[in-house]
Amino acid sequence: MATTEETTFNRLPKQDELKFSGDASYVHFTSNNTIYGTQYKTEPEVGDVTLVCDASSDIFHKKINVNKYGIIYAGAQKNMGPSGVTMVIYRNDLLERSSDDLPSMLNYKTQVENDSMFNTPNTFGIYIIGLVAKWLLNMGGLDKMYEINKHKAGVLYDCIDNSNGFYKGHAEEDSRSLMNVTFNLPTEELEKKLIAETLNAGFSGLEGHRSVGGLRASIYNAFPTEGVEDLVEFMKVFQAKNS
Amino acid sequence: MATTEETTFNRLPKQDELKFSGDASYVHFTSNNTIYGTQYKTEPEVGDVTLVCDASSDIFHKKINVNKYGIIYAGAQKNMGPSGVTMVIYRNDLLERSSDDLPSMLNYKTQVENDSMFNTPNTFGIYIIGLVAKWLLNMGGLDKMYEINKHKAGVLYDCIDNSNGFYKGHAEEDSRSLMNVTFNLPTEELEKKLIAETLNAGFSGLEGHRSVGGLRASIYNAFPTEGVEDLVEFMKVFQAKNS
Repeated sequence: MATTEETTFNRLPKQDELKFSGDASYVHFTSNNTIYGTQYKTEPEVGDVTLVCDASSDIFHKKINVNKYGIIYAGAQKNMGPSGVTMVIYRNDLLERSSDDLPSMLNYKTQVENDSMFNTPNTFGIYIIGLVAKWLLNMGGLDKMYEINKHKAGVLYDCIDNSNGFYKGHAEEDSRSLMNVTFNLPTEELEKKLIAETLNAGFSGLEGHRSVGGLRASIYNAFPTEGVEDLVEFMKVFQAKNS
Repeated sequence: MATTEETTFNRLPKQDELKFSGDASYVHFTSNNTIYGTQYKTEPEVGDVTLVCDASSDIFHKKINVNKYGIIYAGAQKNMGPSGVTMVIYRNDLLERSSDDLPSMLNYKTQVENDSMFNTPNTFGIYIIGLVAKWLLNMGGLDKMYEINKHKAGVLYDCIDNSNGFYKGHAEEDSRSLMNVTFNLPTEELEKKLIAETLNAGFSGLEGHRSVGGLRASIYNAFPTEGVEDLVEFMKVFQAKNS
């Protein structure tokens, strides 16, 4: 385990800060943190220990090497489709570690043995996820999606970095997320003003998570590049008027 | 407990056949059986013991007295909306019996304390269930729905009962379901022939559950009266040609 709580989780722990207990049955990490706007670029090195990842908020944002993981689980509602579906990628040998004492619906063995249809699943959600997968394939696959995501986030981070300190990114550069761009303004008053003005201009959801304040632009796969460009234009005008 | 397995579950157990252990913490029943086409008209009498009901396949088909129940749970996919949502009606005092040893997402206490949003719920499904509820209210509510359901099922059971034994209902008259009408033909060959011909004529899903064979017409709330009338016309013609 490791924590960067001291600096309000503004960066990922470095590899040499990670402490593992010798007998750990798995190491869990969350690949993207939506609140603080941090994201792992590559998986932490965990040796032979099984790696488990909550990829809910950045699954499908780029190709990953599934072989590095024991379990990847991801709620659909950020990059895959509507809420109410969770995708689980499970290494076969781990099924043997699924305890029969678990409630049947929480036992991955039950799900595998029943082709993921132990209960009637969320058919509509799964259907939409199928359409999203086709959309991704048709646009050029995850490599193309990653390129778009890097460009989108880059436009926003450039605006922040070129604002002479008016906008200040919360996350350290190495730890920055491509999905959630978190930043602050010189004062809380200006933050509130900007949020109010963006709302009037038709942008939404820019208020930072209640636990950290500031602003947060969530730019998941489905968010269009034009939306980011419009926001950056808006932020530049706001800065000119308010500094 | 009670069973009518001897007669392939063709009727509900009678009240005096029900055996309860004196120290039962609850009595569970399923209000409608989709496979055998049986349905409780009224709740079994269980005295002071908490009554728990799986109402997945007939919830909203008529008004029920919720006060008789400790817990009613129902998957949405029959009468409420799309699959992937379960509605639970829970008597408050039972929350205290929810064990803290339960996995948090299986503990109703967790759900109640978090306003049913401990995890991001199936928002689309819930939205559609809201529309279905409005549809029910606008058509005259559950009393009107019940009237329609009785009429729909009656049209089909009348056809069966007036067929001089060509069509034979699986469930005993007292136990007949308004949601799933199960019946047989003189031979398995004729059953297959009728199923094939209904498929060609645009009807679907009439094949009985694999565990019992025969035919089954599922006529949930959303199934239109005209669909039942068309099927009955088709069945009459089929009988004239094949008997």
